[in-house]
Amino acid sequence: VQQAIAVLDSGVGGLTVVTELFRQLPQEKIIYFGDTARAPYGPRTQQEVLKFTYQIVDYLLQFDPKLLVIACNTATAAALEDIRCHVSIPVIGVVHPGARAAVRYTKSGIIGVIGTEGTVRSGAYESALLSLSPTIKVHSLACPSFVTLVEQARYNTEEAQKAVESSLIDFRLKPIDCLILGCTHYPFLSSLIQDCMGKQVKLVNSADETAREISTVLHHRGQLAQSSLTPVHHFFCSGHPALFQQIAWSWLGSGMKDCPVVSQVSHLE
Amino acid sequence: VQQAIAVLDSGVGGLTVVTELFRQLPQEKIIYFGDTARAPYGPRTQQEVLKFTYQIVDYLLQFDPKLLVIACNTATAAALEDIRCHVSIPVIGVVHPGARAAVRYTKSGIIGVIGTEGTVRSGAYESALLSLSPTIKVHSLACPSFVTLVEQARYNTEEAQKAVESSLIDFRLKPIDCLILGCTHYPFLSSLIQDCMGKQVKLVNSADETAREISTVLHHRGQLAQSSLTPVHHFFCSGHPALFQQIAWSWLGSGMKDCPVVSQVSHLE
Repeated sequence: VQQAIAVLDSGVGGLTVVTELFRQLPQEKIIYFGDTARAPYGPRTQQEVLKFTYQIVDYLLQFDPKLLVIACNTATAAALEDIRCHVSIPVIGVVHPGARAAVRYTKSGIIGVIGTEGTVRSGAYESALLSLSPTIKVHSLACPSFVTLVEQARYNTEEAQKAVESSLIDFRLKPIDCLILGCTHYPFLSSLIQDCMGKQVKLVNSADETAREISTVLHHRGQLAQSSLTPVHHFFCSGHPALFQQIAWSWLGSGMKDCPVVSQVSHLE
Repeated sequence: VQQAIAVLDSGVGGLTVVTELFRQLPQEKIIYFGDTARAPYGPRTQQEVLKFTYQIVDYLLQFDPKLLVIACNTATAAALEDIRCHVSIPVIGVVHPGARAAVRYTKSGIIGVIGTEGTVRSGAYESALLSLSPTIKVHSLACPSFVTLVEQARYNTEEAQKAVESSLIDFRLKPIDCLILGCTHYPFLSSLIQDCMGKQVKLVNSADETAREISTVLHHRGQLAQSSLTPVHHFFCSGHPALFQQIAWSWLGSGMKDCPVVSQVSHLE
């Protein structure tokens, strides 16, 4: 039996990591859990996010995955180190891959980060960036309205454009050459964010970078999937599956032959 | 005592990996060995390259490094798996990082690879690319003249431009959207190669990507350097140090306060 990569998120944001896994590692089987009933995590306390993350990890471990991805910046900032100490498989968050990519891309050494309140308050990106390169300068901004736009499938609207512009109105004047999309929901808004920030700013999509890092870690553990059979993926969410399914299908569409089957899991303990 | 990252190459090509390590991981101490007396490795047999690589690895292990980088595509193709079975520290080659990056960047799924005869003959990139994504198409070309141009510091000359143009004259017509510089010497020629291939082709510099992967592996092992002291690097070469020192200084210059001290090691057994 092929072991899966288990991916968890507060809702649909982690699907941006899944898209990249489909592209970069098409032979890997994915099991995904989106906690849509309790999204967004951004405004919640660290304790709450830690508790929710543990519940989802427990649920996912029943499938005996080979690797666990915390595809949510808020949950990574709140729970990664803790979870890593409690499970025996590798656990990959989305903060360090994005930080590593930004250090590689920046020429000026001045990097921007946008994320949820929880992520920005935690200082997780600053720590990750400075642990790699102590001379990096970081400018951070919380953009709390973005996640809801994505979770409600309003990311292609004029409302989204206005929200992006008004959130970034001052931030776009910062002298950064690289901007980390420090929330897995934000790639849904990346063309709006790029237009607003200008072409000279390289956007770092932490989803892309996380998929790349998963590939590296599995490779060095000798655990990349060998089978050439098309893997069967599973998607779970805690809220009503209809909206999740709609977003998953429109976002993952090109990477899947069939509409993903989404099962609802109402009771997490 | 801070453990170093040990880097080996047939000559100066691995300095392209060192440049990126200086940039992406400025706190890490580097010990480098360039086998300039026996470069280039490209035309040599696999057995010979394997033997030389073992000799250099034995030399470098006396410094108790935390990680070993085979920063030479020919040596990676010939010796990586073998060396990996014989040493207790992680060993990182340059083939898989480049392959992983190319799979990430390509949109068409058609990827080009240029390298030495040894690398191209080994099929190492094809294997690495197909192990990630079985539908990738690969076009490969050996460019034997490039390494010598770099080893003799003639990479900024009209002669180099002519060599690049004549080597790639047919290859530039291949329908690739991504070209792996499958030799650590080739980044010295990257602007010439980019001009020849055209802007629509994304060049993948395996040196950049390898530095990124080293960062990932050390991070997941909890072995990134913690000290904020400026590390002292060491450079060794098997040939006369004058030309090596000149190339190292012009290439690494901006990343080093002082001219690197290069020691000659004449007898490897």
